[in-house]
Amino acid sequence: MSLRSWINGIPGTQITVEDRGLQYGDGVFETMAVRTGRIVLLDLHLQRLEDSCRRLSIALPPIDLIRDELHATAHDQQRAVLKLIVTRGTGGRGYRPVTLPPTRILTLHEWPDYPANWWQDGIRARVCNTTLGSNSALAGIKHLNRLEQVLARAEWHDDDDIQEGLMTDSSGLVIEGTMTNLFVRLADGQWVTPDLHACGVAGVMRRYILERSKLERVTIRSGKLNVSDIQSASEIFVCNSVIGVWPVRQLENWKYKVGEMTRRIQQWFGDA
Amino acid sequence: MSLRSWINGIPGTQITVEDRGLQYGDGVFETMAVRTGRIVLLDLHLQRLEDSCRRLSIALPPIDLIRDELHATAHDQQRAVLKLIVTRGTGGRGYRPVTLPPTRILTLHEWPDYPANWWQDGIRARVCNTTLGSNSALAGIKHLNRLEQVLARAEWHDDDDIQEGLMTDSSGLVIEGTMTNLFVRLADGQWVTPDLHACGVAGVMRRYILERSKLERVTIRSGKLNVSDIQSASEIFVCNSVIGVWPVRQLENWKYKVGEMTRRIQQWFGDA
Repeated sequence: MSLRSWINGIPGTQITVEDRGLQYGDGVFETMAVRTGRIVLLDLHLQRLEDSCRRLSIALPPIDLIRDELHATAHDQQRAVLKLIVTRGTGGRGYRPVTLPPTRILTLHEWPDYPANWWQDGIRARVCNTTLGSNSALAGIKHLNRLEQVLARAEWHDDDDIQEGLMTDSSGLVIEGTMTNLFVRLADGQWVTPDLHACGVAGVMRRYILERSKLERVTIRSGKLNVSDIQSASEIFVCNSVIGVWPVRQLENWKYKVGEMTRRIQQWFGDA
Repeated sequence: MSLRSWINGIPGTQITVEDRGLQYGDGVFETMAVRTGRIVLLDLHLQRLEDSCRRLSIALPPIDLIRDELHATAHDQQRAVLKLIVTRGTGGRGYRPVTLPPTRILTLHEWPDYPANWWQDGIRARVCNTTLGSNSALAGIKHLNRLEQVLARAEWHDDDDIQEGLMTDSSGLVIEGTMTNLFVRLADGQWVTPDLHACGVAGVMRRYILERSKLERVTIRSGKLNVSDIQSASEIFVCNSVIGVWPVRQLENWKYKVGEMTRRIQQWFGDA
């Protein structure tokens, strides 16, 4: 449940049922962490938002307007989550998209109180049976078509036991978690994060880690990962903008140590 | 734009932005034709609705309640379209679905005035570049994750020139139109409609045609179709519950005659 919400900059909680966001999932979103009045990784969020809207031909309002609204909402929050949805708007005949005034929906949420030991000691994850369909036209975009994640997240019920599920594409390549991206240190010592050209969400935290790793001269490549590569891996973590970096201590029945590089990347998140 | 709308049986045009239908496309819909106060193929629509909600674990209200609401809305309409959306409701933490009171959104729309010659002489169609991702967990369901159709429908702008686009899966198999199902008479005389186990929407009109064809001892099989199979086909039509049956007179640069069987199946729609 959200604490407060705004529709196109005006306090409100309702949208018309004819909005294409509801009718077709025709929109995108960003989920942002607020710490001491500041939005973490804001520029990367805004860049992804612009990129996603351009790819879907959604007429994003001026980015400075959006930035101002986000700042106005965040500035008096110690810890919170901001979610911004931008839909294509209301109209068009059937699926056919036309250029419309988009709908922006901003909601402010309480900080989710994840147990500290998930960050410290790591989480337990599973491999989901629900797979991801591949479509390069949508790959990378954080869009509103999220039924695959909903079905995957329905596969387990006990949050204390399992905290995240990894999803594969239909050929068995591991792509991401239901709400996170994935980084793996393979048995040969190489760090890999799954390639997202065919499916998956290109997370802002993932991008931050990849950019920071270049500055720090740490090699992380984007590539293909099978479940068996992960079984034999020495270190795994999942990440997103809100949780930061969670080590994976157990995936299915395979156990992993929290390594030095995972600890270092957790510090990068502290810097963000 | 809708003429009238109801939320959970009460006149209204707005839903909360926290509804999972907007947040994740977490819901399903039916689009129904109304003729002289009667909903065409109502039982098949209700069966698909029940089946879709069961597959997604959405707690559908009693089907008799839905049937009564549909009848009450349709009975004084000469010609109209009814669209019923059922979402999982409002709540749950993140993607995780829990059992919630679902939201049902019923909208009444004007009958779309498609030119009569599309039915009579046939339409022109294209093969879309936008492909369909495969996911057997979602295949067949008319769910609210429709961005692939939105992107495909954005590929052409002139409705007078092109009336429908066919979509393939990532391996090149032809699955459906953006808003229709597809039937093809191959060069060898066999009738085929694409298999929908991996992707596509199992249309109510498609099902009616398949069931009626058995009664009429007409053999139509569900199978795999490549674009080249369709290029060499002798007869093609597309169908849905609202348009009925549109012959395809031209696909890309290939031309087709409107055959005897297409005419016969158009009559079946008249009976529906």
